[in-house]
Amino acid sequence: MKKAEDFSEWYNEMVERANLTDKRYPIKGMNVWTPYGWKIMRAIDTHIREEFDATNHDEVCFPLLIPEDQFAKEKEHIKGFDAEVFWVTHAGLNPLDVKLLLRPTSETAMYPMFSLWVRSHADLPLKTYQIVNTFRYETKQTRAFIRVREIHFFESHTCHADFDDAERQIREDYEIVERLARKWCIPHKLLKRTDWDKFPGADYTVGIDTVLPNGRTLQLGSIHQYKENFSRPYDIKYEDDKGEHKYVHQTTFGMSERLVGAIVAIHGDDKGIVLPPDVATIQIVVVPVLAKGAAEAVTAEAKNLYNELKGSGLRVHLDDRDVRPGVKYYDWELKGVPLRLELGPKDIEKGVVTFARRDNGEKTLIERERVTDEARETLARIAADMLERAQKTMDADTVAVDSLENLPEKFIRAGWCGGEDCGHSIENRTDRNMIGTPVDDEGFDGACVVCGKPTRTSVYIARAM
Amino acid sequence: MKKAEDFSEWYNEMVERANLTDKRYPIKGMNVWTPYGWKIMRAIDTHIREEFDATNHDEVCFPLLIPEDQFAKEKEHIKGFDAEVFWVTHAGLNPLDVKLLLRPTSETAMYPMFSLWVRSHADLPLKTYQIVNTFRYETKQTRAFIRVREIHFFESHTCHADFDDAERQIREDYEIVERLARKWCIPHKLLKRTDWDKFPGADYTVGIDTVLPNGRTLQLGSIHQYKENFSRPYDIKYEDDKGEHKYVHQTTFGMSERLVGAIVAIHGDDKGIVLPPDVATIQIVVVPVLAKGAAEAVTAEAKNLYNELKGSGLRVHLDDRDVRPGVKYYDWELKGVPLRLELGPKDIEKGVVTFARRDNGEKTLIERERVTDEARETLARIAADMLERAQKTMDADTVAVDSLENLPEKFIRAGWCGGEDCGHSIENRTDRNMIGTPVDDEGFDGACVVCGKPTRTSVYIARAM
Repeated sequence: MKKAEDFSEWYNEMVERANLTDKRYPIKGMNVWTPYGWKIMRAIDTHIREEFDATNHDEVCFPLLIPEDQFAKEKEHIKGFDAEVFWVTHAGLNPLDVKLLLRPTSETAMYPMFSLWVRSHADLPLKTYQIVNTFRYETKQTRAFIRVREIHFFESHTCHADFDDAERQIREDYEIVERLARKWCIPHKLLKRTDWDKFPGADYTVGIDTVLPNGRTLQLGSIHQYKENFSRPYDIKYEDDKGEHKYVHQTTFGMSERLVGAIVAIHGDDKGIVLPPDVATIQIVVVPVLAKGAAEAVTAEAKNLYNELKGSGLRVHLDDRDVRPGVKYYDWELKGVPLRLELGPKDIEKGVVTFARRDNGEKTLIERERVTDEARETLARIAADMLERAQKTMDADTVAVDSLENLPEKFIRAGWCGGEDCGHSIENRTDRNMIGTPVDDEGFDGACVVCGKPTRTSVYIARAM
Repeated sequence: MKKAEDFSEWYNEMVERANLTDKRYPIKGMNVWTPYGWKIMRAIDTHIREEFDATNHDEVCFPLLIPEDQFAKEKEHIKGFDAEVFWVTHAGLNPLDVKLLLRPTSETAMYPMFSLWVRSHADLPLKTYQIVNTFRYETKQTRAFIRVREIHFFESHTCHADFDDAERQIREDYEIVERLARKWCIPHKLLKRTDWDKFPGADYTVGIDTVLPNGRTLQLGSIHQYKENFSRPYDIKYEDDKGEHKYVHQTTFGMSERLVGAIVAIHGDDKGIVLPPDVATIQIVVVPVLAKGAAEAVTAEAKNLYNELKGSGLRVHLDDRDVRPGVKYYDWELKGVPLRLELGPKDIEKGVVTFARRDNGEKTLIERERVTDEARETLARIAADMLERAQKTMDADTVAVDSLENLPEKFIRAGWCGGEDCGHSIENRTDRNMIGTPVDDEGFDGACVVCGKPTRTSVYIARAM
């Protein structure tokens, strides 16, 4: 199946052929992380941990199960999740006194404890995160990594003395997104959701959105300002320096295994997946091209090369399987290894190594003594090029319109007065979603696509994946 | 509470005071991993990953939920877990067609997939592991890390062409235990369980057992030979090189967060916990001892010291809080940091730094220029001494008997003919458990403590924690 012809089928086929997940587990939407897919997920988790540790968040791990009465404390929140939680009703052979639910997200697990942890202003800001499995009973069609029922999930939860400090946290989160997305080579926009599409219980929600090859948006994560919406029902208060008791302001930031899906969808091609060098568990594969008579020399030199690259801290693999080079190329292209080094008897004679880039197929001869430096530089160039290419694609898929007629299947940008009526009108007339208004000032200056009122606000409209 | 007076109370108090866990979560036996406790657990997980990656196991991650019909395939297994699983019966507002259980361990989640993964002898051995949360509805009194209802769990699962290869895997597991226990400074014995105490579904079970200060044993993990007991009901077959279809032989190895409990219980004292240097997230704390007039010089030199140690790869923390040194000593002793470096104006004058060991309280003056080398050596000595001391304590708590009268509350060793009747008789008469017979030949030569028959088999008897 070709990506350009049927993206959806291509995606399903690719996650299977590259062996990132096994969908044959006997519960729909609950898939097995195979070794290769799990390594990619763990590389992403490592990046997340590095960022959140460096910004003074503490990693914690809360229980999976939440008692029904704790879950029910914030009214909007429970309304938002009621239809999609899994319930534990029995233990052993007996019914439980209090039903327990599998966390769909951990607000209602954490906040009863935050109420005990936060006492005075000295305890603030409280910045925590965890990486856990969460559960949502999806009724829509499931899709590997993108819409599943057991979700590998990152979530940070913070408490602040006031609204301004919570806002500072959200700006820090934006910077973290920027750094992480660069590692993952994922172009994106930070889009503030409409009031009727925000997270249940949030004051406002900002989505981290990217655009897939089929013109649909994929929400990679979201950042929420809760104000006091949870701290009041969960009684999370602190004593300020004047002895007054105040409710904390809270924020959260969540991302999930969708990141793996985004990397597959955005960078993959008809040969397989293409991994960003920071994500790749194998960054470089060395393939000896054996020839009669020279096999020993080539094998020995390939090993030298491998050892040299490994010693310099690069993640390298020597493919010394007894199969033809073409088979090896095919396998590693499917697996998305960013850089392949080919080494044959003629290369040794000439003192060179062939570099083959996975992202653009480019082949270059590199002098033997420059291999390690050049490998490092090539990986950096691959990352920069992958991001740039993906950004260009996203830009090309973004179409500004001043009418809602004959919209292409793209990421649409239009003027919006900000009124709820005009918003609903846009959604109804286009049969698409208002994804959100940009957090960054994009210098828009136009008119509302519905009522014609002049506005400096634009809104992005699309079908969500 | 003093450890020597009431170990059980001391333990409960210590996990709380060192802030390793928060037991106030509103479900009994499901505790919150606080940042410090979670760092210790993650250090242990890292050691486990290093060992299992190095021995060519692939890390995977299977779904948490298991359909009832898959769970029920192996009869002994389901009998063993029936009374202690949590059941998901509803999703959203509707009952599920097939009930799902929360994994108590993952045999029945993995083996339907192994049946798809294993096709020919080229797929063998299949060596996998995962680190996940598991669930058991404990009805006994819960205890932090030691008996909980949500369990942070490591489990490896392997498939082999025949019994001999599975036995080789088990011997590799023994070697892994040996290396890991050395890192964690935990003395232990590998004890083969009696037939009536083995894991449900296993051919035989070997426990990794240690002895706690109250004379009770704590099972840290277990290793199982399944033979074909699971591959038959789950239909895990391969085609051998003669084209014959054969069932695989399987093994598993599991360990849990109990390891954290063991480290607290074995090494802690009345001042707090004591962390083995390999487990400690902070191995060295630098405490500047300020004095009027010299504060700046001391602070600057403490920073130098910190940077030098950090630069050499040691995990070091500079405690520059504005509180008295005594308060800092107290805090870091409670937290179990293996080595404290004190630095005051007189030390700077003399060109020395004071080393204070957490494990034995020893203080030594070290020449300034030898600090980094000496710190590294001291940490290695601390680890060796911690293991040696703990081993001596375990040896001293092990008592060989030739009668079952007036047994002390110790780890009892007695002769056993191997007969089931004599075994039950030992358990009934002592009101204790047969923990198991040693896997290593301990050169026993005596008589069965019940029937008097000569035997070369000894059995360890104790109350289990």
